[in-house]
Amino acid sequence: MKKIINDPSQVVDDMLKGFSYMHDDLVERLDGYDVIVKKANKTGNVGLISGGGSGHEPSHAGFVGDGMLSAAICGAVFTSPTPDQILEAIKAADEGAGVFMVIKNYSGDIMNFEMAQELAEMEDISVESVIVDDDIAVEDSLYTQGRRGVAGTILVHKILGEAARAGKSLKEIKTLADQLVPNIKTIGLALSGATVPEVGKPGFTLAEDEFEYGVGIHGEPGYKKEKLQPSKELAKELVEKLTDSFEIKADDKFGILVNGLGSTPLMEQYVFANDVANLLASKNVSVVYKKIGDFMTSIDMAGLSLTLIKLEDHSWEKALKSDVTTPAW
Amino acid sequence: MKKIINDPSQVVDDMLKGFSYMHDDLVERLDGYDVIVKKANKTGNVGLISGGGSGHEPSHAGFVGDGMLSAAICGAVFTSPTPDQILEAIKAADEGAGVFMVIKNYSGDIMNFEMAQELAEMEDISVESVIVDDDIAVEDSLYTQGRRGVAGTILVHKILGEAARAGKSLKEIKTLADQLVPNIKTIGLALSGATVPEVGKPGFTLAEDEFEYGVGIHGEPGYKKEKLQPSKELAKELVEKLTDSFEIKADDKFGILVNGLGSTPLMEQYVFANDVANLLASKNVSVVYKKIGDFMTSIDMAGLSLTLIKLEDHSWEKALKSDVTTPAW
Repeated sequence: MKKIINDPSQVVDDMLKGFSYMHDDLVERLDGYDVIVKKANKTGNVGLISGGGSGHEPSHAGFVGDGMLSAAICGAVFTSPTPDQILEAIKAADEGAGVFMVIKNYSGDIMNFEMAQELAEMEDISVESVIVDDDIAVEDSLYTQGRRGVAGTILVHKILGEAARAGKSLKEIKTLADQLVPNIKTIGLALSGATVPEVGKPGFTLAEDEFEYGVGIHGEPGYKKEKLQPSKELAKELVEKLTDSFEIKADDKFGILVNGLGSTPLMEQYVFANDVANLLASKNVSVVYKKIGDFMTSIDMAGLSLTLIKLEDHSWEKALKSDVTTPAW
Repeated sequence: MKKIINDPSQVVDDMLKGFSYMHDDLVERLDGYDVIVKKANKTGNVGLISGGGSGHEPSHAGFVGDGMLSAAICGAVFTSPTPDQILEAIKAADEGAGVFMVIKNYSGDIMNFEMAQELAEMEDISVESVIVDDDIAVEDSLYTQGRRGVAGTILVHKILGEAARAGKSLKEIKTLADQLVPNIKTIGLALSGATVPEVGKPGFTLAEDEFEYGVGIHGEPGYKKEKLQPSKELAKELVEKLTDSFEIKADDKFGILVNGLGSTPLMEQYVFANDVANLLASKNVSVVYKKIGDFMTSIDMAGLSLTLIKLEDHSWEKALKSDVTTPAW
């Protein structure tokens, strides 16, 4: 394992210290917890929180700030955060209008966020949530019933963050979230496995000429291993699977997110994006919003994912394009 | 070579197509050239341009936009852009007040930018320039007389970009640039070599337990190979070298830039940043500006660099913190 770290068992604590130092104009760490909270005046708006295991940086702490998350809970690497940590995030995020939780669809995350919700409700804080299950690669997985939650989650942060900033109620945000999530679909591919620092070796290995479609962001198995192909062919497989998962009408508008998984250079992401653009154009898919970079990673995994979001409501496009002040949007 | 690309000889063209598609709200590609220009109303301000070989993404095209570069020239991978391409960038960037060129200190870049300057002056465009040589690792190098220009260059883009936006004259920007560059120092380390697509294998290799201090962003040799050490020790070496290179007085203010070289996850960058923070605090170095992420990469090289900028003038700090609309700042 070749990593720039100190004691592998301290990597999340060291990282959060570095994170809160580098971004101390925008965020701070809750004293004694692995929770990053927004530094901002109280507004009385609904608090928006998310979180999960660490190793997906900049998710989710990188999206804490004005217009997005109020707080993010950072579990151990690839490990669900504990209910006590989530409860602290809920308490920190509550400004009287309740707290909305964005949860990726992993069984441990759901269990612990729901337990924290019960604890918060015992303290008279209203809590609602949505489960993001955007990964269309496989049904059920190592840590998931149904479909996994992956990069599309950051679009949920952005659109709900804008709604919270606009003063929408907890009930309105819940309605929006339930309408939004089924319109977000993601699929990815991996060229290499990720190495959890405390494990010291990759979670899976692929031959030098091999890649795998549909690998999860914790290295969960995908649906097909093949010999490496040109970017065009990879794009074709992902675009086909995504467009097939929507019923696309002529006047539908979409957003796309090309997401690097941790060690894939921008050079490759842009080459891939060009192939995606050509394929979508050939299918007359109208793309009105685009985003590219590393947002939901799997530590040092090589590979990328592609997300399509169907912008059912014009306000969603506006919300994606609005300015925020976060470390990583 | 495991890369998400098509024909290796087309990688820059494919990448620039993807880049201009993904960021078509902010930039466009000059028809027939490997030049990315700002999409914006003419202001009559000095045009600011930069460029170099490709492979350092998001540099430099990612910094084209309001408040930073007017245009960026993208050479072949690790290869200086040609004078005709630079000339087109100058012509596109000129709004009547002249054009300022930010050049990294590589012999080929300097020769070609200067040739383009002569050609532009023959067309009555005033051109000035600065050579950035922030890398303190080694004196002279494979492609450089003196010190190499590396990640600190993006801070030059930002501060000069703010000056151009504020309507400073070409002469004022030249004076500012000459004052600024000696106050920016960078040093880095690599855990692996970068693979140029057309070459197909890494430019250099290191043993599984080995890293190298001072490697250049094209894989130029550094100054010391060692067995991999904890982040704390790496940070100590880089911070010592950097602080020794300044004469630091009690009321001096600094900015820091932690820059990933392409395949180093944010997890590691933040762990390293925390060690840097502790070391600078122990030396009573006052840090008033911080930036972290992948800005000046070396394709898929693993490693990072640390930049210190001495903020001699309060306006430099303000310029670093001002809002811009670019793909990657």
